[in-house]
Amino acid sequence: MKILALLGSSRKQGNTEYMVHRILEGVDHTSVHIADYTIQPITDMRHTEEGFSPVDDDYETLLHQFLEHDVIIFATPLYWYGMSGHLKNFVDRWSQYLRDERYNFKEELRKKKAYVVVTGGNTSTITALPLIQQFKYIFDFVGMEYIDYIIARGVKPEEVSHDPLALHKASFWNEEFKKEK
Amino acid sequence: MKILALLGSSRKQGNTEYMVHRILEGVDHTSVHIADYTIQPITDMRHTEEGFSPVDDDYETLLHQFLEHDVIIFATPLYWYGMSGHLKNFVDRWSQYLRDERYNFKEELRKKKAYVVVTGGNTSTITALPLIQQFKYIFDFVGMEYIDYIIARGVKPEEVSHDPLALHKASFWNEEFKKEK
Amino acid sequence: MKILALLGSSRKQGNTEYMVHRILEGVDHTSVHIADYTIQPITDMRHTEEGFSPVDDDYETLLHQFLEHDVIIFATPLYWYGMSGHLKNFVDRWSQYLRDERYNFKEELRKKKAYVVVTGGNTSTITALPLIQQFKYIFDFVGMEYIDYIIARGVKPEEVSHDPLALHKASFWNEEFKKEK
Amino acid sequence: MKILALLGSSRKQGNTEYMVHRILEGVDHTSVHIADYTIQPITDMRHTEEGFSPVDDDYETLLHQFLEHDVIIFATPLYWYGMSGHLKNFVDRWSQYLRDERYNFKEELRKKKAYVVVTGGNTSTITALPLIQQFKYIFDFVGMEYIDYIIARGVKPEEVSHDPLALHKASFWNEEFKKEK
Repeated sequence: MKILALLGSSRKQGNTEYMVHRILEGVDHTSVHIADYTIQPITDMRHTEEGFSPVDDDYETLLHQFLEHDVIIFATPLYWYGMSGHLKNFVDRWSQYLRDERYNFKEELRKKKAYVVVTGGNTSTITALPLIQQFKYIFDFVGMEYIDYIIARGVKPEEVSHDPLALHKASFWNEEFKKEK
Repeated sequence: MKILALLGSSRKQGNTEYMVHRILEGVDHTSVHIADYTIQPITDMRHTEEGFSPVDDDYETLLHQFLEHDVIIFATPLYWYGMSGHLKNFVDRWSQYLRDERYNFKEELRKKKAYVVVTGGNTSTITALPLIQQFKYIFDFVGMEYIDYIIARGVKPEEVSHDPLALHKASFWNEEFKKEK
Repeated sequence: MKILALLGSSRKQGNTEYMVHRILEGVDHTSVHIADYTIQPITDMRHTEEGFSPVDDDYETLLHQFLEHDVIIFATPLYWYGMSGHLKNFVDRWSQYLRDERYNFKEELRKKKAYVVVTGGNTSTITALPLIQQFKYIFDFVGMEYIDYIIARGVKPEEVSHDPLALHKASFWNEEFKKEK
Repeated sequence: MKILALLGSSRKQGNTEYMVHRILEGVDHTSVHIADYTIQPITDMRHTEEGFSPVDDDYETLLHQFLEHDVIIFATPLYWYGMSGHLKNFVDRWSQYLRDERYNFKEELRKKKAYVVVTGGNTSTITALPLIQQFKYIFDFVGMEYIDYIIARGVKPEEVSHDPLALHKASFWNEEFKKEK
């Protein structure tokens, strides 16, 4: 079972990353910051004759990482009550690769398990719920299994370390991951 | 009353643009495609000493347009059950400009009225609801008035022209805009 | 195609009933007010040896009506951001009749088409969305087809007659029903 | 700080009650099963000249209990993706008592803190979210403070005792309640 933490934050060592550390400490995994890659927003060519054009950016490097793992932890700060634009751009481009014959993207997605980690302000246990529901629709569409989600409260650096319920759930996942390996 | 249609689509002459045409035909307005501008995803510097750094892209050009208008029509295709990455990047960057002393961004936002147009597949009258709720949280946060939304069904080019309820609502808004001018 | 309007209002000639009239004028149908029947809240006996006990109320009279129709219009005022208790009690008791061998309740439900009409205050185009989503889960669970919904704004008697968009959608449904008969 | 557990279950010793026991063991509190009281669904008389009529049921007995407590734990099984009809009837009747001059219902509600416990099937961490959002609207409307919620998974008797995350959150609340007394 290969685990990928896909970080949608724009800054390093923030609360989202803190949560991912707690979830994966002592567990073999790969961690990538989407912001370290140049990812263009999608250009929708589904309805053109020529189809999608190759894009000169780092998408496929990131995609290879994504495809090689069985468990994906989608970890994002709650930006404006949704996933970060970085992560959204990554997901939007799936539409292109679902149609790219070089990949069995559709079949690969169906084998993966998804976890969601969202970090936001104090009200985010409520205001992140549309995002939690959006992920449900995303995973249903591609056939990924939506295991569970954590909504953690923390805005200032390390603030999330004061959210005991989020930390406990992180530890619980951590133990589960350790068992499965 | 100055009206701006802010288009989040990645392709031209798609269903979202079609809807905007119907809403604004015969009405004085400005229409911008975010995809025509280079907009970087946000780099969150809220918690650093130096604060946000200037970004070398087209954001401020777009921002000037945005600030000059009283009514904003946020028009986006439903990409993966959310707004497009293009639009999300635009909104994410608000966090930067809320802290930029050159603009009275906060005060300006509070005076604006928001309309939302989402175009998606057949199920989008249900699956777009998390996005409709997300916009509610966004507009509440900045104090914009959320007038109404249209969820229009159309994926293939011009398909939305066969959604009579969406078109009717577009005409209704159109008449309201004509009255107000 | 036999149509049943299932009214969850507690008062007669209110906004919900007004909407139903507009949707069904000139269309052959049956209309029932749940409040005219005595419906006990469910007593959950799923996990007892003896199973559910017969309840001495009007449920089965209403159930017979429900089963005889192909199209159900669930029409309810938005009470505390949900369906009325009257309608909720009716739906809750489905759990009992799904297990009652005298009825092919499960199979019958699967053949029905569902429309939802909700009437509420000015903000209900947003605040009724959890209810719209709840109905989606309900219909998915039993296999009913969720055709569409109307959220109409009106609290004081007849106030809904000033919501042109809701009335237009009602007329649209009305025309569709007239075509199908 | 006086605590009331308001149980919406229709059966005794079910999962919802189990959760409430875990949340409140060793904590001084009152626990009531709404199903032990006869509660009529509301008859909406807001728009009549005479206003609401007295209803011959147990509502006011329950209401007195409700008003005497500062913290309310709304505990309900997830019936058809919503609160139970029992609890819904209780809440619907608030509309009547908001207009009853014998009570300062509005002012009293504003002083209370609300916790929500929902028990449902395996998918309820997603499918209970509309209910969690509905409670948010309810509490916002009356000015109650929405402290937090637990979604616990358990359908068969005692099944919830195998949901470690829900139990942990129950223990956490339990410790908080013990501190505050």
